[in-house]
Amino acid sequence: MSRTVRFTEAGAPEVLRFVEESVRGPGRGEVRINVKAIGLNRAESMWRTDRYIEPVRFPAGLGYEAAGIVDAVGEGVVEFAPGDEVSVIPSFSMNQYFTYGEVIIVPDHAVVRHPKSLSYAEAASVWMMFVTAYGALIEDAKVGAGDYVVVPAASSSVGLAAIQLANYAGATSIAVTRHAGKRRQLLDAGAAHVVVTDESDLVEEIMRITDGKGARVAFDPVGGPNFAKLIEALSFQGIAYLYGALDERPTTLPVLQMIARMNSVKAHNIWLTSGDPTRRKAAVEFVLKGLESGSLKPVIDRTFAFDEIVDAHRYLETNGQFGKIVVTV
Amino acid sequence: MSRTVRFTEAGAPEVLRFVEESVRGPGRGEVRINVKAIGLNRAESMWRTDRYIEPVRFPAGLGYEAAGIVDAVGEGVVEFAPGDEVSVIPSFSMNQYFTYGEVIIVPDHAVVRHPKSLSYAEAASVWMMFVTAYGALIEDAKVGAGDYVVVPAASSSVGLAAIQLANYAGATSIAVTRHAGKRRQLLDAGAAHVVVTDESDLVEEIMRITDGKGARVAFDPVGGPNFAKLIEALSFQGIAYLYGALDERPTTLPVLQMIARMNSVKAHNIWLTSGDPTRRKAAVEFVLKGLESGSLKPVIDRTFAFDEIVDAHRYLETNGQFGKIVVTV
Repeated sequence: MSRTVRFTEAGAPEVLRFVEESVRGPGRGEVRINVKAIGLNRAESMWRTDRYIEPVRFPAGLGYEAAGIVDAVGEGVVEFAPGDEVSVIPSFSMNQYFTYGEVIIVPDHAVVRHPKSLSYAEAASVWMMFVTAYGALIEDAKVGAGDYVVVPAASSSVGLAAIQLANYAGATSIAVTRHAGKRRQLLDAGAAHVVVTDESDLVEEIMRITDGKGARVAFDPVGGPNFAKLIEALSFQGIAYLYGALDERPTTLPVLQMIARMNSVKAHNIWLTSGDPTRRKAAVEFVLKGLESGSLKPVIDRTFAFDEIVDAHRYLETNGQFGKIVVTV
Repeated sequence: MSRTVRFTEAGAPEVLRFVEESVRGPGRGEVRINVKAIGLNRAESMWRTDRYIEPVRFPAGLGYEAAGIVDAVGEGVVEFAPGDEVSVIPSFSMNQYFTYGEVIIVPDHAVVRHPKSLSYAEAASVWMMFVTAYGALIEDAKVGAGDYVVVPAASSSVGLAAIQLANYAGATSIAVTRHAGKRRQLLDAGAAHVVVTDESDLVEEIMRITDGKGARVAFDPVGGPNFAKLIEALSFQGIAYLYGALDERPTTLPVLQMIARMNSVKAHNIWLTSGDPTRRKAAVEFVLKGLESGSLKPVIDRTFAFDEIVDAHRYLETNGQFGKIVVTV
């Protein structure tokens, strides 16, 4: 039997309910995992309110990340065996698979044997944050020495991963945060520069930092009316990746300026990388190497008990955290 | 002496004035041309109203395209000599060089020796239209067999060039036009499909044509509120190129849908190609080959006399033309 988190209607965190279920055996190409830790993401909050990138089919489960021990494998699964310590890389629809449960089933392509140096809480944290940022900054933009990378919502787990990856690749990271309160923490987390938008103008500050050239890359989960400012802070042929819609107000483009500088907006999600076997493998290798060398390191803000899943979701939505929220099972 | 078109304040077509000037000798790397024909572009209309991608420095000249005969060359110019029949590829700021004049000076990198099979009117028409569309469709998107290419404002010269280039590359062109009146003309001009937005829903029609997959590329000079519909008609990882702002209302993104499908918006202008010597050379060779084979052919809507420049600009702004407007000198 497994305690699994389910919801039958979209809504506030309280719609989440624990259900005792017996979990079926894994089918062809599937792996069953005894879960030790679950990594939480804003995606699940949007999913719970049915405002995510695909509509929810009720009754629904939720969750993209987890770490635990393989319990059983389905037909055709050769890479994993019961007893393996594994974690889950987001690469499926939550209408099909999910991770908020004591026992879960996921497709084998979403399973990674992570290094023993990672705790379960860390292993449940690394894939969404690092692979999402890797896909944009490393795989697509190929950032390197001389590049400036602007990271709004820098205290989020993916934001912190972007700072680490930009530094790891030799680029210069510029964290963007609303309040001065997080400046010190962001510098300590590796940001080369921190722009506090309550105190200074984003475009002016980035132009000052980049000697008037603008940043080649921005990596933004917010959108909304401030997105145009982010584009104004880009260099000639600079790219703004947009991987979330935290600000639900209209996201409007400064068209003529974009045409003059040939800027791009690339909507991004982890699927670019995790949806393709070759790219996923390269990403996992890249991240593992960074984790092993210590250049990449998950930042965990707070851990909740599984029983506290509703509180954990409430906390997730305060946007006050610095790094990842993890639930231990 | 040269009659040159100048304007000293932004405004309606009437701000354009003829001025008798003596044109200086060409400086280092410059070519002086006796102009026979001038190709008109919407860019010059935006320039005249000072709403273009860079501010106008008054008193100003205008014009990106022309064809004529080399009159003199400056120091260091080895590729051209007096008597050469040449045309001008847009690759400079109109604050620095311009083409609306009997005698003009342009940088040598903007000069092309075009095939004798082209009339002056044709030679003054080909570069903006074909190189702008080439940069997006061929150079960047690399369209080919199996790709659908959506072309709004399809009756414009660049739109017609995009249809020809998409066909030439083996892709399927979908012209978009507001009124049914141009359907026949667009089919005759090579469009594989024509969507009339007055009669049918853009997204539904494109989904029908593409068997529900959406188009991989859209190539749009309009923007504004309809741009989001264009993005909704894109395929997974489809790209919308935006190379103009004919609709000055806000251009707002359908963010979540873009993230789900990882769509990109790439602001585009001819400078991507014409601003780089290697790319410019490749583009010129590609277009010349297409012109010589007959696969590419400039479409000229109407020719005006140089004296009628104000009328020509008025006509340019009706958006009623089908192809290029040319002024003969």
